[in-house]
Amino acid sequence: MLFPETTLTATPPTKEPLTKDLKNMEVAIQQARLGFEEGGIPIGGALASRPKTSFSADGKLLGVGRNKRIQEGSPTKHGEIDCLENIGRLSALVYKGCTMYTTLSPCTMCSGAIVLFGIRRVVLGENTTFVGGEDILISRGVEIINLDLTECKELMIKFTEAAPEVWNEDIGEE
Amino acid sequence: MLFPETTLTATPPTKEPLTKDLKNMEVAIQQARLGFEEGGIPIGGALASRPKTSFSADGKLLGVGRNKRIQEGSPTKHGEIDCLENIGRLSALVYKGCTMYTTLSPCTMCSGAIVLFGIRRVVLGENTTFVGGEDILISRGVEIINLDLTECKELMIKFTEAAPEVWNEDIGEE
Ligand SMILES: [Ca+2]
Ligand SMILES: [Ca+2]
Ligand SMILES: [Zn+2]
Ligand SMILES: [Zn+2]
Repeated sequence: MLFPETTLTATPPTKEPLTKDLKNMEVAIQQARLGFEEGGIPIGGALASRPKTSFSADGKLLGVGRNKRIQEGSPTKHGEIDCLENIGRLSALVYKGCTMYTTLSPCTMCSGAIVLFGIRRVVLGENTTFVGGEDILISRGVEIINLDLTECKELMIKFTEAAPEVWNEDIGEE
Repeated sequence: MLFPETTLTATPPTKEPLTKDLKNMEVAIQQARLGFEEGGIPIGGALASRPKTSFSADGKLLGVGRNKRIQEGSPTKHGEIDCLENIGRLSALVYKGCTMYTTLSPCTMCSGAIVLFGIRRVVLGENTTFVGGEDILISRGVEIINLDLTECKELMIKFTEAAPEVWNEDIGEE
Protein backbone atom coordinates (compact mmCIF):
# COMPACT_ATOMS: atom_id res chain seq x y z
CA MET A 1 0.00 0.00 0.00
CA LEU A 2 1.27 3.40 -0.96
CA PHE A 3 0.40 5.54 2.06
CA PRO A 4 -0.17 3.29 5.06
CA GLU A 5 -0.84 6.29 7.32
CA THR A 6 -3.67 7.66 5.22
CA THR A 7 -7.02 6.40 4.03
CA LEU A 8 -7.14 7.01 0.31
CA THR A 9 -10.12 9.01 -0.89
CA ALA A 10 -11.51 8.07 -4.30
CA THR A 11 -14.11 10.44 -5.74
CA PRO A 12 -17.07 8.43 -7.10
CA PRO A 13 -17.95 8.69 -10.80
CA THR A 14 -19.72 11.93 -11.65
CA LYS A 15 -23.22 11.50 -13.06
CA GLU A 16 -24.07 13.55 -16.15
CA PRO A 17 -20.69 15.21 -16.76
CA LEU A 18 -20.56 18.45 -18.76
CA THR A 19 -19.97 18.21 -22.52
CA LYS A 20 -17.08 20.69 -22.29
CA ASP A 21 -15.36 18.46 -19.71
CA LEU A 22 -15.69 15.39 -21.92
CA LYS A 23 -14.35 17.42 -24.85
CA ASN A 24 -11.37 18.83 -22.95
CA MET A 25 -10.61 15.37 -21.54
CA GLU A 26 -10.25 14.12 -25.12
CA VAL A 27 -7.25 16.46 -25.44
CA ALA A 28 -5.65 14.94 -22.35
CA ILE A 29 -6.39 11.44 -23.68
CA GLN A 30 -4.68 12.33 -26.97
CA GLN A 31 -1.59 13.18 -24.91
CA ALA A 32 -1.82 9.86 -23.07
CA ARG A 33 -2.11 7.97 -26.37
CA LEU A 34 0.85 9.89 -27.80
CA GLY A 35 2.85 8.97 -24.70
CA PHE A 36 1.91 5.33 -25.15
CA GLU A 37 3.02 5.40 -28.79
CA GLU A 38 6.36 6.85 -27.63
CA GLY A 39 6.77 3.90 -25.24
CA GLY A 40 5.95 6.10 -22.27
CA ILE A 41 3.56 5.94 -19.35
CA PRO A 42 0.17 6.80 -20.88
CA ILE A 43 -1.01 9.67 -18.69
CA GLY A 44 -1.93 13.04 -20.18
CA GLY A 45 -2.95 16.44 -18.87
CA ALA A 46 -4.52 19.61 -20.20
CA LEU A 47 -5.26 22.98 -18.61
CA ALA A 48 -8.24 25.02 -19.75
CA SER A 49 -9.63 28.30 -18.52
CA ARG A 50 -13.24 28.26 -17.46
CA PRO A 51 -15.79 29.76 -19.78
CA LYS A 52 -16.94 33.25 -18.85
CA THR A 53 -14.09 34.17 -16.55
CA SER A 54 -12.43 37.53 -16.90
CA PHE A 55 -9.51 35.71 -18.50
CA SER A 56 -11.37 33.96 -21.28
CA ALA A 57 -14.92 33.83 -22.56
CA ASP A 58 -14.68 30.46 -24.25
CA GLY A 59 -12.93 27.91 -22.05
CA LYS A 60 -9.66 28.33 -23.91
CA LEU A 61 -7.12 25.50 -23.82
CA LEU A 62 -3.91 26.87 -22.30
CA GLY A 63 -1.66 23.87 -22.80
CA VAL A 64 -1.12 20.13 -22.62
CA GLY A 65 1.44 17.69 -21.24
CA ARG A 66 2.15 14.02 -20.69
CA ASN A 67 4.23 11.81 -18.46
CA LYS A 68 7.87 11.97 -19.66
CA ARG A 69 9.57 9.44 -17.37
CA ILE A 70 10.60 7.20 -20.25
CA GLN A 71 10.89 9.76 -23.03
CA GLU A 72 13.07 12.25 -21.12
CA GLY A 73 14.20 10.20 -18.11
CA SER A 74 12.20 12.64 -16.02
CA PRO A 75 11.00 11.61 -12.57
CA THR A 76 8.94 14.78 -12.01
CA LYS A 77 7.25 15.38 -15.38
CA HIS A 78 3.91 13.76 -14.76
CA GLY A 79 1.11 14.77 -17.14
CA GLU A 80 0.03 17.66 -14.94
CA ILE A 81 3.55 18.96 -14.12
CA ASP A 82 4.60 18.72 -17.78
CA CYS A 83 1.44 20.63 -18.73
CA LEU A 84 2.11 23.42 -16.19
CA GLU A 85 5.76 23.55 -17.26
CA ASN A 86 4.90 23.69 -20.98
CA ILE A 87 2.54 26.61 -20.34
CA GLY A 88 5.17 28.51 -18.39
CA ARG A 89 4.75 31.38 -15.97
CA LEU A 90 1.25 32.73 -15.35
CA SER A 91 -0.17 34.97 -12.63
CA ALA A 92 -2.19 33.44 -9.80
CA LEU A 93 -5.34 35.07 -11.16
CA VAL A 94 -5.25 33.00 -14.36
CA TYR A 95 -4.88 29.62 -12.61
CA LYS A 96 -7.83 30.46 -10.36
CA GLY A 97 -10.13 30.37 -13.38
CA CYS A 98 -8.73 27.10 -14.76
CA THR A 99 -9.66 23.43 -14.76
CA MET A 100 -6.92 20.78 -14.81
CA TYR A 101 -7.77 17.73 -16.91
CA THR A 102 -5.84 14.57 -16.20
CA THR A 103 -6.44 11.05 -17.47
CA LEU A 104 -5.62 9.55 -14.03
CA SER A 105 -6.25 10.55 -10.41
CA PRO A 106 -3.44 13.06 -9.65
CA CYS A 107 -0.65 11.78 -7.38
CA THR A 108 0.30 13.69 -4.23
CA MET A 109 2.91 15.77 -6.11
CA CYS A 110 0.45 16.83 -8.80
CA SER A 111 -2.35 17.36 -6.27
CA GLY A 112 0.02 19.57 -4.28
CA ALA A 113 0.89 21.47 -7.46
CA ILE A 114 -2.80 22.05 -8.21
CA VAL A 115 -3.26 23.43 -4.68
CA LEU A 116 -0.11 25.59 -4.90
CA PHE A 117 -1.04 27.08 -8.26
CA GLY A 118 -4.54 27.85 -6.97
CA ILE A 119 -6.39 25.74 -9.56
CA ARG A 120 -9.91 25.28 -8.16
CA ARG A 121 -11.26 22.43 -10.32
CA VAL A 122 -9.87 19.05 -11.44
CA VAL A 123 -11.43 16.65 -13.94
CA LEU A 124 -9.94 13.18 -13.89
CA GLY A 125 -10.34 10.34 -16.39
CA GLU A 126 -10.44 7.55 -13.81
CA ASN A 127 -9.31 6.56 -10.33
CA THR A 128 -9.68 2.79 -10.55
CA THR A 129 -6.12 1.83 -11.52
CA PHE A 130 -4.59 4.39 -9.08
CA VAL A 131 -5.82 6.80 -6.41
CA GLY A 132 -3.60 9.81 -5.78
CA GLY A 133 -3.93 12.82 -3.50
CA GLU A 134 -7.64 13.44 -3.89
CA ASP A 135 -7.83 13.90 -0.10
CA ILE A 136 -5.35 16.78 -0.38
CA LEU A 137 -7.46 18.43 -3.09
CA ILE A 138 -10.67 17.98 -1.09
CA SER A 139 -9.06 19.33 2.11
CA ARG A 140 -8.19 22.52 0.20
CA GLY A 141 -11.64 22.89 -1.33
CA VAL A 142 -10.74 21.88 -4.90
CA GLU A 143 -13.71 20.49 -6.86
CA ILE A 144 -13.13 17.01 -8.36
CA ILE A 145 -15.07 15.57 -11.31
CA ASN A 146 -14.47 11.87 -12.07
CA LEU A 147 -15.41 10.93 -15.64
CA ASP A 148 -14.64 7.22 -15.01
CA LEU A 149 -13.70 6.56 -18.64
CA THR A 150 -13.05 3.04 -19.91
CA GLU A 151 -10.50 4.23 -22.46
CA CYS A 152 -8.33 5.80 -19.74
CA LYS A 153 -8.42 2.58 -17.71
CA GLU A 154 -7.62 0.45 -20.76
CA LEU A 155 -4.53 2.51 -21.57
CA MET A 156 -3.25 2.18 -18.00
CA ILE A 157 -3.96 -1.56 -17.82
CA LYS A 158 -2.19 -2.09 -21.13
CA PHE A 159 0.90 -0.23 -19.88
CA THR A 160 1.07 -1.56 -16.32
CA GLU A 161 0.68 -5.15 -17.50
CA ALA A 162 3.49 -4.68 -20.03
CA ALA A 163 5.88 -2.72 -17.75
CA PRO A 164 4.83 -3.01 -14.08
CA GLU A 165 8.32 -2.05 -12.82
CA VAL A 166 8.24 1.32 -14.65
CA TRP A 167 4.82 2.07 -13.25
CA ASN A 168 5.94 1.17 -9.73
CA GLU A 169 8.90 3.49 -10.15
CA ASP A 170 6.56 6.31 -11.19
CA ILE A 171 4.41 5.97 -8.09
CA GLY A 172 7.33 5.40 -5.71
CA GLU A 173 6.63 1.72 -5.06
CA GLU A 174 9.27 -0.97 -4.75
CA MET B 1 -3.81 33.81 3.37
CA LEU B 2 -2.63 30.98 1.17
CA PHE B 3 -4.89 28.09 2.18
CA PRO B 4 -7.95 29.46 3.94
CA GLU B 5 -9.41 25.96 4.35
CA THR B 6 -6.42 24.61 6.22
CA THR B 7 -4.59 25.47 9.39
CA LEU B 8 -0.93 25.74 8.49
CA THR B 9 1.38 23.57 10.53
CA ALA B 10 4.82 25.02 11.25
CA THR B 11 7.33 22.63 12.78
CA PRO B 12 9.10 24.34 15.71
CA PRO B 13 12.88 24.79 15.57
CA THR B 14 14.77 21.57 16.28
CA LYS B 15 17.01 21.71 19.34
CA GLU B 16 20.51 20.30 18.94
CA PRO B 17 20.42 19.45 15.24
CA LEU B 18 22.82 16.85 13.86
CA THR B 19 26.15 18.02 12.46
CA LYS B 20 25.56 16.11 9.22
CA ASP B 21 22.25 17.95 8.73
CA LEU B 22 23.89 21.34 9.22
CA LYS B 23 26.63 20.29 6.79
CA ASN B 24 24.23 19.04 4.10
CA MET B 25 22.08 22.16 4.52
CA GLU B 26 25.13 24.23 3.60
CA VAL B 27 24.99 22.59 0.16
CA ALA B 28 21.35 23.63 -0.25
CA ILE B 29 22.21 27.16 0.93
CA GLN B 30 24.97 27.35 -1.67
CA GLN B 31 22.30 26.61 -4.29
CA ALA B 32 20.04 29.33 -2.86
CA ARG B 33 22.92 31.83 -2.95
CA LEU B 34 23.77 30.85 -6.53
CA GLY B 35 20.11 31.37 -7.45
CA PHE B 36 20.16 34.80 -5.82
CA GLU B 37 23.27 35.76 -7.78
CA GLU B 38 21.49 34.69 -10.98
CA GLY B 39 18.62 37.04 -10.10
CA GLY B 40 16.42 34.09 -9.13
CA ILE B 41 14.33 33.17 -6.12
CA PRO B 42 16.90 32.09 -3.50
CA ILE B 43 15.66 28.63 -2.52
CA GLY B 44 17.91 25.60 -2.78
CA GLY B 45 17.55 21.86 -2.31
CA ALA B 46 19.81 18.85 -1.87
CA LEU B 47 19.11 15.14 -1.57
CA ALA B 48 21.40 12.93 0.51
CA SER B 49 21.19 9.28 1.38
CA ARG B 50 21.20 8.48 5.06
CA PRO B 51 24.37 7.15 6.60
CA LYS B 52 24.38 3.41 7.19
CA THR B 53 21.55 2.51 4.87
CA SER B 54 21.94 -0.40 2.52
CA PHE B 55 22.36 2.16 -0.25
CA SER B 56 25.23 4.16 1.18
CA ALA B 57 27.38 4.04 4.27
CA ASP B 58 28.39 7.68 4.29
CA GLY B 59 25.38 9.95 3.71
CA LYS B 60 26.28 10.47 0.09
CA LEU B 61 25.00 13.60 -1.65
CA LEU B 62 22.90 12.49 -4.62
CA GLY B 63 22.20 15.88 -6.17
CA VAL B 64 21.22 19.51 -5.79
CA GLY B 65 18.76 21.97 -7.28
CA ARG B 66 17.41 25.49 -6.99
CA ASN B 67 14.32 27.46 -7.90
CA LYS B 68 14.43 28.21 -11.66
CA ARG B 69 11.35 30.41 -12.14
CA ILE B 70 13.39 33.39 -13.26
CA GLN B 71 16.36 31.63 -14.80
CA GLU B 72 14.37 29.19 -16.97
CA GLY B 73 10.87 30.67 -16.84
CA SER B 74 9.90 27.48 -15.02
CA PRO B 75 6.81 27.48 -12.81
CA THR B 76 7.41 23.95 -11.47
CA LYS B 77 11.17 23.87 -10.83
CA HIS B 78 11.27 24.68 -7.16
CA GLY B 79 14.47 23.78 -5.33
CA GLU B 80 13.20 20.30 -4.44
CA ILE B 81 11.66 19.50 -7.86
CA ASP B 82 14.78 20.75 -9.67
CA CYS B 83 16.90 18.58 -7.37
CA LEU B 84 14.81 15.45 -8.03
CA GLU B 85 14.80 16.21 -11.76
CA ASN B 86 18.57 16.78 -11.89
CA ILE B 87 19.16 13.44 -10.17
CA GLY B 88 16.89 11.62 -12.61
CA ARG B 89 15.26 8.23 -12.30
CA LEU B 90 15.89 6.19 -9.15
CA SER B 91 14.13 3.19 -7.68
CA ALA B 92 11.78 3.65 -4.73
CA LEU B 93 14.25 1.85 -2.46
CA VAL B 94 16.87 4.59 -2.85
CA TYR B 95 14.53 7.47 -2.00
CA LYS B 96 13.40 5.66 1.14
CA GLY B 97 16.88 6.02 2.60
CA CYS B 98 17.20 9.71 1.70
CA THR B 99 16.82 13.06 3.41
CA MET B 100 15.62 16.08 1.42
CA TYR B 101 17.32 19.32 2.42
CA THR B 102 15.53 22.53 1.49
CA THR B 103 16.30 26.08 2.57
CA LEU B 104 12.57 26.87 2.98
CA SER B 105 9.51 24.98 4.22
CA PRO B 106 8.43 22.90 1.18
CA CYS B 107 5.27 24.08 -0.61
CA THR B 108 2.35 21.69 -1.18
CA MET B 109 3.75 20.58 -4.57
CA CYS B 110 7.17 19.77 -3.16
CA SER B 111 5.68 18.19 -0.03
CA GLY B 112 3.51 16.03 -2.29
CA ALA B 113 6.60 15.09 -4.32
CA ILE B 114 8.46 14.06 -1.15
CA VAL B 115 5.50 11.85 -0.19
CA LEU B 116 5.19 10.40 -3.71
CA PHE B 117 8.89 9.57 -3.99
CA GLY B 118 8.78 7.95 -0.55
CA ILE B 119 11.40 10.21 1.05
CA ARG B 120 11.00 9.72 4.80
CA ARG B 121 12.92 12.71 6.22
CA VAL B 122 12.99 16.44 5.42
CA VAL B 123 15.38 19.04 6.84
CA LEU B 124 14.30 22.63 6.26
CA GLY B 125 16.27 25.83 6.68
CA GLU B 126 13.39 27.89 8.05
CA ASN B 127 9.60 28.25 8.05
CA THR B 128 9.27 31.84 9.22
CA THR B 129 9.01 33.60 5.85
CA PHE B 130 6.72 30.86 4.43
CA VAL B 131 4.98 27.72 5.65
CA GLY B 132 4.28 25.08 3.01
CA GLY B 133 2.73 21.62 3.19
CA GLU B 134 4.27 20.46 6.45
CA ASP B 135 0.82 19.12 7.44
CA ILE B 136 0.89 16.86 4.36
CA LEU B 137 4.33 15.54 5.32
CA ILE B 138 3.28 14.94 8.92
CA SER B 139 0.04 13.20 7.88
CA ARG B 140 2.15 10.74 5.85
CA GLY B 141 4.63 10.14 8.65
CA VAL B 142 7.56 12.08 7.17
CA GLU B 143 10.02 13.35 9.81
CA ILE B 144 10.66 17.12 9.71
CA ILE B 145 13.75 18.83 11.15
CA ASN B 146 13.65 22.65 11.27
CA LEU B 147 17.12 24.22 11.49
CA ASP B 148 15.65 27.75 11.79
CA LEU B 149 18.70 29.38 10.17
CA THR B 150 19.09 33.15 10.07
CA GLU B 151 20.97 33.05 6.78
CA CYS B 152 18.06 31.30 5.03
CA LYS B 153 15.62 33.91 6.36
CA GLU B 154 17.89 36.78 5.36
CA LEU B 155 18.13 35.53 1.77
CA MET B 156 14.35 35.26 1.50
CA ILE B 157 13.73 38.67 3.07
CA LYS B 158 16.26 40.25 0.72
CA PHE B 159 14.53 38.72 -2.31
CA THR B 160 10.89 39.22 -1.30
CA GLU B 161 11.47 42.86 -0.39
CA ALA B 162 13.14 43.46 -3.77
CA ALA B 163 10.66 41.47 -5.92
CA PRO B 164 7.44 40.76 -3.98
CA GLU B 165 5.44 40.13 -7.20
CA VAL B 166 7.77 37.32 -8.32
CA TRP B 167 7.56 35.68 -4.93
CA ASN B 168 3.75 35.93 -4.91
CA GLU B 169 3.70 34.32 -8.37
CA ASP B 170 5.86 31.47 -7.06
CA ILE B 171 3.48 30.70 -4.19
CA GLY B 172 0.32 31.20 -6.25
CA GLU B 173 -0.72 34.44 -4.57
CA GLU B 174 -2.23 37.41 -6.37
CA1 LIG C 1 -11.80 9.08 -27.19
CA1 LIG D 1 26.60 29.24 5.76
ZN1 LIG E 1 1.60 13.18 -10.54
ZN1 LIG F 1 7.85 23.89 -3.81
